[in-house]
Amino acid sequence: MTARLIDSLATTGEMAAAFDDKAVVGAMLRFETALALAQARCGVIPDRAAQAIAEAAGTPDAYDAEAMARAARSSGAPVISFVSMLTARVASTDPESARFVHHGATSQDVVDTAMVLTLVRAAAILRGGHARLTAALRSLSDRHAHTTMLGRTLLQPGPPITFGLKVAGWCDAVSRSGDRMFDAFDAALVLQFGGAVGTLAALGSRRQAVAEALADELDLDLPAAPWHAHRDRLGALVAACGLYTATLGKIARDVSLLMQDEVGEVSERGGGSSTMPHKRNPSGCAIVLAAATRVPALVAAFLAGMVQEHERSVGGWQAEWPTIAAAVQATESALAAAVEVIDHLEVFPDRMRENIQRTNGTVFAERVMLGLSASLGREAAMRLVTEVLERSRATGQSFGDLARATVDIARAMSADDLAVFDQPDTYLGAAEQMRVSLLRSARAGN
Amino acid sequence: MTARLIDSLATTGEMAAAFDDKAVVGAMLRFETALALAQARCGVIPDRAAQAIAEAAGTPDAYDAEAMARAARSSGAPVISFVSMLTARVASTDPESARFVHHGATSQDVVDTAMVLTLVRAAAILRGGHARLTAALRSLSDRHAHTTMLGRTLLQPGPPITFGLKVAGWCDAVSRSGDRMFDAFDAALVLQFGGAVGTLAALGSRRQAVAEALADELDLDLPAAPWHAHRDRLGALVAACGLYTATLGKIARDVSLLMQDEVGEVSERGGGSSTMPHKRNPSGCAIVLAAATRVPALVAAFLAGMVQEHERSVGGWQAEWPTIAAAVQATESALAAAVEVIDHLEVFPDRMRENIQRTNGTVFAERVMLGLSASLGREAAMRLVTEVLERSRATGQSFGDLARATVDIARAMSADDLAVFDQPDTYLGAAEQMRVSLLRSARAGN
Amino acid sequence: MTARLIDSLATTGEMAAAFDDKAVVGAMLRFETALALAQARCGVIPDRAAQAIAEAAGTPDAYDAEAMARAARSSGAPVISFVSMLTARVASTDPESARFVHHGATSQDVVDTAMVLTLVRAAAILRGGHARLTAALRSLSDRHAHTTMLGRTLLQPGPPITFGLKVAGWCDAVSRSGDRMFDAFDAALVLQFGGAVGTLAALGSRRQAVAEALADELDLDLPAAPWHAHRDRLGALVAACGLYTATLGKIARDVSLLMQDEVGEVSERGGGSSTMPHKRNPSGCAIVLAAATRVPALVAAFLAGMVQEHERSVGGWQAEWPTIAAAVQATESALAAAVEVIDHLEVFPDRMRENIQRTNGTVFAERVMLGLSASLGREAAMRLVTEVLERSRATGQSFGDLARATVDIARAMSADDLAVFDQPDTYLGAAEQMRVSLLRSARAGN
Amino acid sequence: MTARLIDSLATTGEMAAAFDDKAVVGAMLRFETALALAQARCGVIPDRAAQAIAEAAGTPDAYDAEAMARAARSSGAPVISFVSMLTARVASTDPESARFVHHGATSQDVVDTAMVLTLVRAAAILRGGHARLTAALRSLSDRHAHTTMLGRTLLQPGPPITFGLKVAGWCDAVSRSGDRMFDAFDAALVLQFGGAVGTLAALGSRRQAVAEALADELDLDLPAAPWHAHRDRLGALVAACGLYTATLGKIARDVSLLMQDEVGEVSERGGGSSTMPHKRNPSGCAIVLAAATRVPALVAAFLAGMVQEHERSVGGWQAEWPTIAAAVQATESALAAAVEVIDHLEVFPDRMRENIQRTNGTVFAERVMLGLSASLGREAAMRLVTEVLERSRATGQSFGDLARATVDIARAMSADDLAVFDQPDTYLGAAEQMRVSLLRSARAGN
Repeated sequence: MTARLIDSLATTGEMAAAFDDKAVVGAMLRFETALALAQARCGVIPDRAAQAIAEAAGTPDAYDAEAMARAARSSGAPVISFVSMLTARVASTDPESARFVHHGATSQDVVDTAMVLTLVRAAAILRGGHARLTAALRSLSDRHAHTTMLGRTLLQPGPPITFGLKVAGWCDAVSRSGDRMFDAFDAALVLQFGGAVGTLAALGSRRQAVAEALADELDLDLPAAPWHAHRDRLGALVAACGLYTATLGKIARDVSLLMQDEVGEVSERGGGSSTMPHKRNPSGCAIVLAAATRVPALVAAFLAGMVQEHERSVGGWQAEWPTIAAAVQATESALAAAVEVIDHLEVFPDRMRENIQRTNGTVFAERVMLGLSASLGREAAMRLVTEVLERSRATGQSFGDLARATVDIARAMSADDLAVFDQPDTYLGAAEQMRVSLLRSARAGN
Repeated sequence: MTARLIDSLATTGEMAAAFDDKAVVGAMLRFETALALAQARCGVIPDRAAQAIAEAAGTPDAYDAEAMARAARSSGAPVISFVSMLTARVASTDPESARFVHHGATSQDVVDTAMVLTLVRAAAILRGGHARLTAALRSLSDRHAHTTMLGRTLLQPGPPITFGLKVAGWCDAVSRSGDRMFDAFDAALVLQFGGAVGTLAALGSRRQAVAEALADELDLDLPAAPWHAHRDRLGALVAACGLYTATLGKIARDVSLLMQDEVGEVSERGGGSSTMPHKRNPSGCAIVLAAATRVPALVAAFLAGMVQEHERSVGGWQAEWPTIAAAVQATESALAAAVEVIDHLEVFPDRMRENIQRTNGTVFAERVMLGLSASLGREAAMRLVTEVLERSRATGQSFGDLARATVDIARAMSADDLAVFDQPDTYLGAAEQMRVSLLRSARAGN
Repeated sequence: MTARLIDSLATTGEMAAAFDDKAVVGAMLRFETALALAQARCGVIPDRAAQAIAEAAGTPDAYDAEAMARAARSSGAPVISFVSMLTARVASTDPESARFVHHGATSQDVVDTAMVLTLVRAAAILRGGHARLTAALRSLSDRHAHTTMLGRTLLQPGPPITFGLKVAGWCDAVSRSGDRMFDAFDAALVLQFGGAVGTLAALGSRRQAVAEALADELDLDLPAAPWHAHRDRLGALVAACGLYTATLGKIARDVSLLMQDEVGEVSERGGGSSTMPHKRNPSGCAIVLAAATRVPALVAAFLAGMVQEHERSVGGWQAEWPTIAAAVQATESALAAAVEVIDHLEVFPDRMRENIQRTNGTVFAERVMLGLSASLGREAAMRLVTEVLERSRATGQSFGDLARATVDIARAMSADDLAVFDQPDTYLGAAEQMRVSLLRSARAGN
Repeated sequence: MTARLIDSLATTGEMAAAFDDKAVVGAMLRFETALALAQARCGVIPDRAAQAIAEAAGTPDAYDAEAMARAARSSGAPVISFVSMLTARVASTDPESARFVHHGATSQDVVDTAMVLTLVRAAAILRGGHARLTAALRSLSDRHAHTTMLGRTLLQPGPPITFGLKVAGWCDAVSRSGDRMFDAFDAALVLQFGGAVGTLAALGSRRQAVAEALADELDLDLPAAPWHAHRDRLGALVAACGLYTATLGKIARDVSLLMQDEVGEVSERGGGSSTMPHKRNPSGCAIVLAAATRVPALVAAFLAGMVQEHERSVGGWQAEWPTIAAAVQATESALAAAVEVIDHLEVFPDRMRENIQRTNGTVFAERVMLGLSASLGREAAMRLVTEVLERSRATGQSFGDLARATVDIARAMSADDLAVFDQPDTYLGAAEQMRVSLLRSARAGN
């Protein structure tokens, strides 16, 4: 029976397919085929056996995944039943060749390499989404290089920034997190091949040649030794997914906050409501934030499971498959949702400007205070500014006008400064320079 | 496409079925049916509409779960498409009644209640396993009330205990954890019904009556108010799963350690190896320990997601479905494996006794030291005992014999004590009393 | 050297004092004193020895915690050096009595019971804060029983609720979580006393009497057996802290969102900025949300560490002290901050009403649609309502007026309904009834 | 009051000092001093002011950390009170200069840069330990290049490996994890300097020059923009600590298992027991494993907190200080313990050999089976081998001898193979080649 609903926001159809039974069985069969071909190339098994195995492995649909899953519970991995099924298929056409199935490999060789092959496909999907997202962010930032909005700290308004700067910050963080993640994928996606205890003892003198041929068949790197109980490379991959998803989560949090009706500065295309016809929900952000809630814990699960016993562990390893699959799927689910959000993001510069105006100039109090501090000292400046702030709040008059009308302030600031201090565009500091610098840094990373 | 392999150790066939698309769609249909019936009972919608809806909801297989899953990604939950499908089915036979589908409910009402109904079924499965496990542990403890073995602290041998006491400790902890878990299930499995913002405003004056009738139809308790954004009851359920699984993990760790070839004191039926014909692996323990690696993190994910905004959240709620489903399935997977392990556990009392003897009496050094302390003082006693220990290690002679031959020791202890201090059965302290007391406490809890 | 800054938001001065060296040494000394007194009561050691030990234990400041901490790294717990210090102090006045220090106990007995005694004090602090918080929430809810505000789902406006209902939801959840937490404290705070491997074998026939007397001296319950390697009770306590903190986190998230300048519906007293004189920051919410970020993971750490070997573990147990201390301190830090926030919360009913008005009636679209569905059917109703919504958005005219001016709508609704449908107070559903019910449920729980 | 006991296994004295109040205040003062000097260099403030500030900042002990900690709870960070204290000290000698304290910086600039400076010191401590550990592992591996021992999978014996190979696997994983960790430190330890909302607007036209001069004063890199709400670099650092600690945890698990009395293949110097004179506990392993239990969850806490709002967050940021401090201290605590364990590890090659012999040749069953498969086919081979295994178990005779006496086996294998198949040294496969390769890979990484 299918089980798509429980995970409907936790994966995409494309990524679900990368981890479903067909994909997993397919990857296991690829391993066994490549092993046979590699051993044939090295003269360890007959060519004919390799061909018979490759043929029997050519029809993934013929393998009963449900039965494999059931059998896994008694042997601790879905390999013994799988090897039996493959052996039986080979035997049905070529009994002589059947004895060469899975020759010299151990269960974990198949399972780990199958996971690696699955992740190769997953990485390609992620790369596509990542390229789209960073391109969209870059372009969004450029379009809004000069769109002024409130900076906000602790959810309270501060002096202005540009929307272009905000987006460039997103872009740089996503870009850096993507580099980290794809580096981790590249480093982790290596062959697992060690036999019973990792020494390839069963393969005799041609063991190194077989290992190299196998890596070659599967287009994977061959590490210095098997990594049956050393899982840090996969751990780094999962952790990098965690960092990537958290970065997307920051963006989604920002978008969902800016999309509040009372703020109204951006809007994702969003989703409707089953009951409220007036609503446009930040559904894309919800998917991203759900992933950002789940993946950190999956990272913890993986790291906790890395304490693995001796040459192969009891429990730690067996915890990995569902953890990696969930983490990678959640990451890509978040990424796909983020692409949707950013690709279709509506931006409302007028609301941004209105929200600055709504603060009645108070967000420029810092600027006045700094202007005054130089001549009056910090304390006297603070006293003056606070008093004007209070009058502004009490009367509803703009802080700027009140400040300009305050003799001690007017005297202490230059005429020029006094005239413009509450004009947002004159207080953007290094916003544009930083924006450009962030986008450059993002590009350099890629 | 099915996806059973990735999770083959993370669930059982039975529990996977409780969370698959058929089960989820079935639970959603049960909600809509019950809602219609309840509203008909209260005169809010026509009886005929309720019947038409109930009929259309009678064939879960007719609903396209894959399409619902896809649609969920744009609206943030699989409800809008589901309601459309149900509405269309009703309309196809009775267009007039179609307008009453999902009347006054909100998406989260369906999704949360469907999850609750799913958990009702899951709880029943868990209860069955728990009863089997505690019964098996109780009986195992009774059978080994007087089977003496090494106590072990920090993986080093200490004075003896009984295997019955060890198992009674397992039983008490499992029993207490089960009580905690089923209490949490009972408390959490309540109706969700609040409409758009939780006030049931859309239902007019008969809202309370409808809510009560709906709870009645579904055989669920009605809470004081909807809990759209207050998720502590479900959080407590997930946390209790974490505690239960961790308790099973402790047992599995113990069993897998006792099953080491060098220890050899127990053996689970275990699983074979794909390569090594001589092996019997602690496959059941591996499943339990894998769950104990994963579930703590799922608890963290749930708790982190409980920080939910206002009347319904962006992200926190959407993270729950996969988290709960994974946690409950892992718990039951561990439980099923633990039942297998304990039901078929072989115990080797001879090896237990041999392992005590292998320590050459040194584990009784504490006893001698305490015997000497009273007359010689702690320091002098420690000096004497340490010296004998060293001689025993150097010569291979038994600590007991050497101690008995040491004048200062012989003089300071009674003849009786001197004779028996290294006989395991004379140094079991309150082992049997505690064993009985633990089993009584375990039973009282149930 | 003190280390208060790193944890300045992670604890309060009061709770930091409950876990500092003085408190820990004090608790360890209380254990040793009580043990000596209990053993004297039972005739196991001389009265005089008990008195000498009690006296030497009377001056916690005389113990060098830094030296104990250093020594702990080589023996795995700060007990051996501690016992030496205590023994030396006893010996300095009464050498004969020194041999009875720590008699029959094991390191973990001292450490666990000291932790339990520390938690007794922590629980009292938590209880005080919890009582203040629930009282403040109840009173706040009552004051705002009829203060109407927007319901918000997915951070978007929905039909109205009352602020009193929102606060009652907070109160009920906090109350329930408090009950859960204090129950977990009560269940966990039991004596640890088992000697080397938990059988009390070293104490001879008076072991049970000593255990009972010790529990009595310390005013702790005596469990069925020691729990050196069964940590589920403490795990439940930590998990309950996680649930409590997450519940506070939900409240803090709501408050910080309502406190946004653009929303402006409430304000905590808040904190200033080092640079921006105009700011009032949700500093209390920040402390709560920081705790809600950290504690879930601490729960996971505790649960992961529960997989403990045999009679005493390697690693799992040693991970507990910092985990529990951090979790309990973070929980109380959040609670203290929440009390501050709620005690001084300013509420702005005018802004609440304005924010409803700002939506221009669109949040009542659901109500109109339901009104129309009955006569027109769902689809036609949706079409009509959507069209009016679009006109309202395009023209800025109120949805209510436009709807009333729409013939098909006016015809399908009763005159009464048509007149009032966009008046917030007429669409509160069961808000007040639920509010009362939630507060009742909260009180009943306590 | 000090608080060293609760964390006595969670840190070392050296690392505790890197995060105590003196260190934190010192780092904050370094920031303020460097800021003043940088601004003087750029002509933004008078030289004299910079000198006055530097002087006032020269006595960290003069600052009341406890008062700063208390004040932090109302303002959300310990900065406002700190700046007041510094300002007051400057004012006490040079009132004119006091106004230039903290000029243009925001609280988070100080706090984040202070954390970075603290981490610079922490990284140096970690580097020292890492170099010692990898050197010790390399040397240990070389010494035991030819020490044969059982390979063990799922805690069951398998064909032999060498201890040198096992240790080389540890070395390679530690080395790779160290590279990852120090890269993450390098990338994360950059200046934080942005002013109120990150644009440095308050500093006028010389802002870039000041930022560069400040980075130069502190010997930190200057990033493309401030990272007030983008925390992925620190997240990567914490995650890398998690991977490193998990890797150490794997080693400690192995050592503690090998150190079991029944296995007895290695021993750490270890710690004594407060009650059992005969014991040598794996105390060092316990410290490592405790860290490996805690740090994964701290990683999750950090990642969860990375979802930070806008230009500065409510809660996420405030959760970081205790999380990073705990993670880095736990990592170094584990590292220091691992160095102790490995530096003083006793290895018992005789016991390793005995443990192989104890298996009575059964671990070579795989070898025989592979030898037979080629001629008899897999199934027949399995049948034969299983039968011999059973006879060996039943009779206690060696599997090797029984196999050699079995006609069908003797006939199917070469005389040479038959003679040596159960000699461990003839079945080590690529062990030595992999060992060399792992150490080479470890070295190359550094």
